[in-house]
Amino acid sequence: MTIEKEPSTQVFQGYITKRLPHVLSGKGCNIVVEKDGKVHDDILDAVTGAAVGALGWGDEDILNIMAEAAKGHTYTFPSLIGNSQSEELSKFYIENSPKGAFASALWCCSGSESNENAMKIIRQYQLERGQPKRTKIISRELSYHGFTLGALSISSNARAEQFKDLLIDQKETCLKMPACYPYRFMNKGETEEEYAARLVDTLEKIIIDNDPTTISCVLVETLPGSSLGTAPPPKGYLSGIRRICNKYDVIFMVDEVMCGTGRSNPNGKLNCWENYLTAEEAPDIQTVGKTLGSGYVTIAGVLVGPKILDAYAEGSNLVIGSHTYASHGFNCAVALGVQKKILANGLTKNIFEKGNLMGEKLREALMSYDNIVGDVRGIGGFWSLEFVKDRDTKEPFSYTVDVGHRFQDVCFENGVSVMGMQGNIDMVSGDICLLAPSFIITDEDVDNIVVRVKKSVDDMTALLKAEGHY
Amino acid sequence: MTIEKEPSTQVFQGYITKRLPHVLSGKGCNIVVEKDGKVHDDILDAVTGAAVGALGWGDEDILNIMAEAAKGHTYTFPSLIGNSQSEELSKFYIENSPKGAFASALWCCSGSESNENAMKIIRQYQLERGQPKRTKIISRELSYHGFTLGALSISSNARAEQFKDLLIDQKETCLKMPACYPYRFMNKGETEEEYAARLVDTLEKIIIDNDPTTISCVLVETLPGSSLGTAPPPKGYLSGIRRICNKYDVIFMVDEVMCGTGRSNPNGKLNCWENYLTAEEAPDIQTVGKTLGSGYVTIAGVLVGPKILDAYAEGSNLVIGSHTYASHGFNCAVALGVQKKILANGLTKNIFEKGNLMGEKLREALMSYDNIVGDVRGIGGFWSLEFVKDRDTKEPFSYTVDVGHRFQDVCFENGVSVMGMQGNIDMVSGDICLLAPSFIITDEDVDNIVVRVKKSVDDMTALLKAEGHY
Repeated sequence: MTIEKEPSTQVFQGYITKRLPHVLSGKGCNIVVEKDGKVHDDILDAVTGAAVGALGWGDEDILNIMAEAAKGHTYTFPSLIGNSQSEELSKFYIENSPKGAFASALWCCSGSESNENAMKIIRQYQLERGQPKRTKIISRELSYHGFTLGALSISSNARAEQFKDLLIDQKETCLKMPACYPYRFMNKGETEEEYAARLVDTLEKIIIDNDPTTISCVLVETLPGSSLGTAPPPKGYLSGIRRICNKYDVIFMVDEVMCGTGRSNPNGKLNCWENYLTAEEAPDIQTVGKTLGSGYVTIAGVLVGPKILDAYAEGSNLVIGSHTYASHGFNCAVALGVQKKILANGLTKNIFEKGNLMGEKLREALMSYDNIVGDVRGIGGFWSLEFVKDRDTKEPFSYTVDVGHRFQDVCFENGVSVMGMQGNIDMVSGDICLLAPSFIITDEDVDNIVVRVKKSVDDMTALLKAEGHY
Repeated sequence: MTIEKEPSTQVFQGYITKRLPHVLSGKGCNIVVEKDGKVHDDILDAVTGAAVGALGWGDEDILNIMAEAAKGHTYTFPSLIGNSQSEELSKFYIENSPKGAFASALWCCSGSESNENAMKIIRQYQLERGQPKRTKIISRELSYHGFTLGALSISSNARAEQFKDLLIDQKETCLKMPACYPYRFMNKGETEEEYAARLVDTLEKIIIDNDPTTISCVLVETLPGSSLGTAPPPKGYLSGIRRICNKYDVIFMVDEVMCGTGRSNPNGKLNCWENYLTAEEAPDIQTVGKTLGSGYVTIAGVLVGPKILDAYAEGSNLVIGSHTYASHGFNCAVALGVQKKILANGLTKNIFEKGNLMGEKLREALMSYDNIVGDVRGIGGFWSLEFVKDRDTKEPFSYTVDVGHRFQDVCFENGVSVMGMQGNIDMVSGDICLLAPSFIITDEDVDNIVVRVKKSVDDMTALLKAEGHY
């Protein structure tokens, strides 16, 4: 078959022969979307793309900042000639993180690029300090760190599985420890602390079994996102990993591309790990993205701690090579404008409180009666629903029923944009739905999200009953 | 050593403890740069970052387009909800390429991301058409395809070598064929056609020796850039690769991130391969970047040919997953504005003519007397100088003399920005300098570049003589 002469789409995404819905405009927490010829002009955006939007859409201040930043922008290749915009954004991020946590930052164009660069920075760190044997990276099962091949190699999900023949060695280099997924994998009768200790012990065993002097780093999403849903780490888990990393002289890295930069911070600041770790337990290196540019510009980054920076300074003193668009002046200037507005308006504080309120209300509305929701979990502005056939056994729906993606469509019909995902249990079955609204949401928005999601759960439950799946 | 309390830089690039020069502003082909406290206000930008700038800096039309595009931009996650801006950019690129060459486009944020996605698209193509054994990618020695780990795995240079322990399998998956480098590797007495035939025969032998039914694609930079310098492919080389790919049912991919999108096109259009291939010989897939957004926005892309698209349409019909910032509406709108202005003003035609004039004048000025320049090569707006101790033997300088990087500094002092590189011969020794000016250059700019580069060659030659290296 040859594609028709006038294809409905010439963008290589989604279905090859079918045009996706198109966004027409956005204002605040609402977007206008054309789908199959019909204009939906009141969609409440409860997931902001993929947890990207922090300021909502069409923010006049940011539009002005973009116009101004454009005027002041002159591109240069960042490893030869730098710019003040990237310095200022670094200063802002470091100053708004716990004192001493970070010393330098690299600005890239995507979370994938950031995780790729973090892998390389860690590798060069081991070379700089004379530990060339340290090549192994330990990340988690059921994780997601990006869509480039290096980032997929440290991920574990259906998207990585499809490209398994192109990944970095999974047996010798990119090792996996168990997922941290209390809803499914915490034993009956086990406390949070006991589950955390079990996972940390398993990590230590993996390190010992694989020769501790060859381990380079341990890497987790502080609060996972599109892999298994937003399962908050149990008490003692992250600090336990930190302790093991110290014990074996291994780098501790966190990926906060999706959960970080204000989405789930308890102090009105930036990092999600501040919920769980002290400044002294800070990660040695961290990736960020998404809400950093709030969807207005395509920016992400790597925050480098003093331990790593010192090893470079004492070694070659040189970062070799660079991405063409690293430190992009325009992107950095706009991101800084976004972050300054968020800080000045207390919006990270707002999303932490309103997000937790949304979570509580969803839990109350959905877990109190008979429906397909098995769990409601998250923290701050980042939440998930998990769908099951049976709350007691936690049995998932068959993947052929495709509950996650269909729930997303039902939500859209009910005027709320969410992200449905599948494969959270074993990379095939298991269905979840992600919510990550803008930091500007009001109490009224929270109520509207809860009402529309509840109606969608009711509709989906009825649909699955009618089909004999529930 | 702990980094000083007030570090001179907090951006992780270049030297750890030393601030790079900073760009202050730019206008047309000139940039203003502060270096070590001194402002250089008349630097002629002869390399536009890394062959990125097409329209020059501070273009009022583009600043207006950016302000307008910001107003119309609402971010969505591109595999769920698309936008018209990415469709329009795709349409423009496909329509301005030879008829039938491309059918779809994916817009990413960097050349690295584009090459990573091309690798995945080709892999899924082989799965869609039931050829799962086809996993092997053949690229070239002395090549560069990007700075993420997948892109480094198909590259071959010092930057890849440093991360060799993190690369995709180099023996089973990412195979290498010889570089195409006439200045160094064409035999004495051999014609261009004979050299091309020898390289194509070697490719065929590699395919046969590695089981043709396991080969997925062959990949080259149409006109290489930062690896071995801009060596135009000898007559019959690219069409020979196309013929071999057809013979063994293998995908033919070209990387035009650096050389493409108007930098070196003979027809006032976009693709560099139009210098060498007919529409019927078009690559099956191609990556682009750099001049696409002209440094104003961080955009790159993958152009997908009808053969690949058809296999998807006849197969699963689905592209799985996406990068968060793929199809970014703002970036696509600005890139389209940049490309439309370039086309409307005949600037690709201008750079092809003026660039070739610059090359001729450089050759005339530099090769006619005794100095360190061994070769001047390139096409259109993309040229290189190669430095040697001896023109007859082509002996390079010792890498410890660091001629490439030092020449770049000498050029800067003489008021012209170029890119010096090292390691083009064997990933260690060999020095080159890249030139890639904006498409807007005038005859006067050409003359100024030639005068300043010639003075720099004289200065560098004298310096090396004084040091006893020449």
